[in-house]
Amino acid sequence: MFSKSTVKYIQSLQHKKFRDESGAFIAEGPKVVAELLETGVFNCQSVFALEEWGDALTPSARKDLGEKLVIIKDFELEKISALSKPNLVLAVFEKKITNKISFNGRLTLALDDIQDPGNLGTIIRIADWFGVRDIICSLHTADMYNPKVVQSTMASLARVNLVYVDIAQQLSSTTVKKYAAALDGTALEKVDKLEEGIIIIGNESKGIRPEIMQLANKKITISRVGLAESLNAAVATGIILYQLSNKN
Amino acid sequence: MFSKSTVKYIQSLQHKKFRDESGAFIAEGPKVVAELLETGVFNCQSVFALEEWGDALTPSARKDLGEKLVIIKDFELEKISALSKPNLVLAVFEKKITNKISFNGRLTLALDDIQDPGNLGTIIRIADWFGVRDIICSLHTADMYNPKVVQSTMASLARVNLVYVDIAQQLSSTTVKKYAAALDGTALEKVDKLEEGIIIIGNESKGIRPEIMQLANKKITISRVGLAESLNAAVATGIILYQLSNKN
Repeated sequence: MFSKSTVKYIQSLQHKKFRDESGAFIAEGPKVVAELLETGVFNCQSVFALEEWGDALTPSARKDLGEKLVIIKDFELEKISALSKPNLVLAVFEKKITNKISFNGRLTLALDDIQDPGNLGTIIRIADWFGVRDIICSLHTADMYNPKVVQSTMASLARVNLVYVDIAQQLSSTTVKKYAAALDGTALEKVDKLEEGIIIIGNESKGIRPEIMQLANKKITISRVGLAESLNAAVATGIILYQLSNKN
Repeated sequence: MFSKSTVKYIQSLQHKKFRDESGAFIAEGPKVVAELLETGVFNCQSVFALEEWGDALTPSARKDLGEKLVIIKDFELEKISALSKPNLVLAVFEKKITNKISFNGRLTLALDDIQDPGNLGTIIRIADWFGVRDIICSLHTADMYNPKVVQSTMASLARVNLVYVDIAQQLSSTTVKKYAAALDGTALEKVDKLEEGIIIIGNESKGIRPEIMQLANKKITISRVGLAESLNAAVATGIILYQLSNKN
């Protein structure tokens, strides 16, 4: 079924307000859609695809999708796609609601208002690379279901838990040690690998808010040799996790 | 002087072809323009600014600009700006032509077809952070004078030398050791800090071309704990320079 109201519904999912209301999000392109279907983490509502995508499915994959699969035409895909070049298939998935967070015995990231979806997507992939399973995000952090984040993270989105919370409250409620990425802390290379801890990363231009910074047990800094004013927030996250995550 | 041909000229500088032809590029916003003017690395052709920007200049800064400063109106700035929200001032600078490269006694980056201007900008800032002064770029690497790169790197653009060359030829012509970022190399944490070396970073999706890879003396890999398919190219560059650059 591909009615006017379907088009309107899918277009609305480009906006956070409507994703929040409906509890759904979109993913596009054969690779992303296939990966998210395979992980099974997000319940699939429907898949809108060109005939050639449908034809390329194995019989069992096609049977699994059943009536969720709607074959549409080029011009219809163009109407619902958020991409400048629509890519064969668009799927609607249900958001996953995670509220349970445990900080014990593991590394966790805490993002304090990361605003650029590109940075958030990159950070999710970094977390997945270094085996970090959980990220707590302040309420003003970019939305993990923003189409740009979904497109750039692919299956990492399904493997890393993101929870949007009042991070001040969360950080106050645990005795697990907190490490804040800052410009005036202990040199990162002098900090040992961590079995457990929460690493706080601040906003791209403003850094970590003072009320969050005061909850940190330690400030850590990536030593600077040259003159650059700052490092990109995702790059800093990558370097810190490289140094602190326990690879053994 | 703010004629139709001026508008046309400045608009053309959003495209690489015309930047190459004219040897000029644009920078926008008070912070970027002030920083680039201050470094003096790029010769300034003209500055188009709203009255309030001109009024905020010190008398000596205003005198230095002389006839290069052209005060324009809001709607005129909108015409020439590459930003969705024009920001007080747009300056035209002359590109710097650097051909001289020395690999001896220092760390150098070699970029093999980095295509995303955002990634290139982030890599330039990373180089500047870790004191790397030179980057050789393959001829298909994003243009350092792309407005997005200029906006995101600010003064780092003036402090780091980028040279666009046939990198295969350049790498073949030196005995300085080459380290290639790859998925199947020596674990990065087992590689010692380097006083001298060329670190090769590949394209975002294709990695390093085989003909470049074969010139490397060593492959290095950022160990993966989780399941992410890849790390962002700029993040990988940051982690590698963190580990290998000599901070003492």
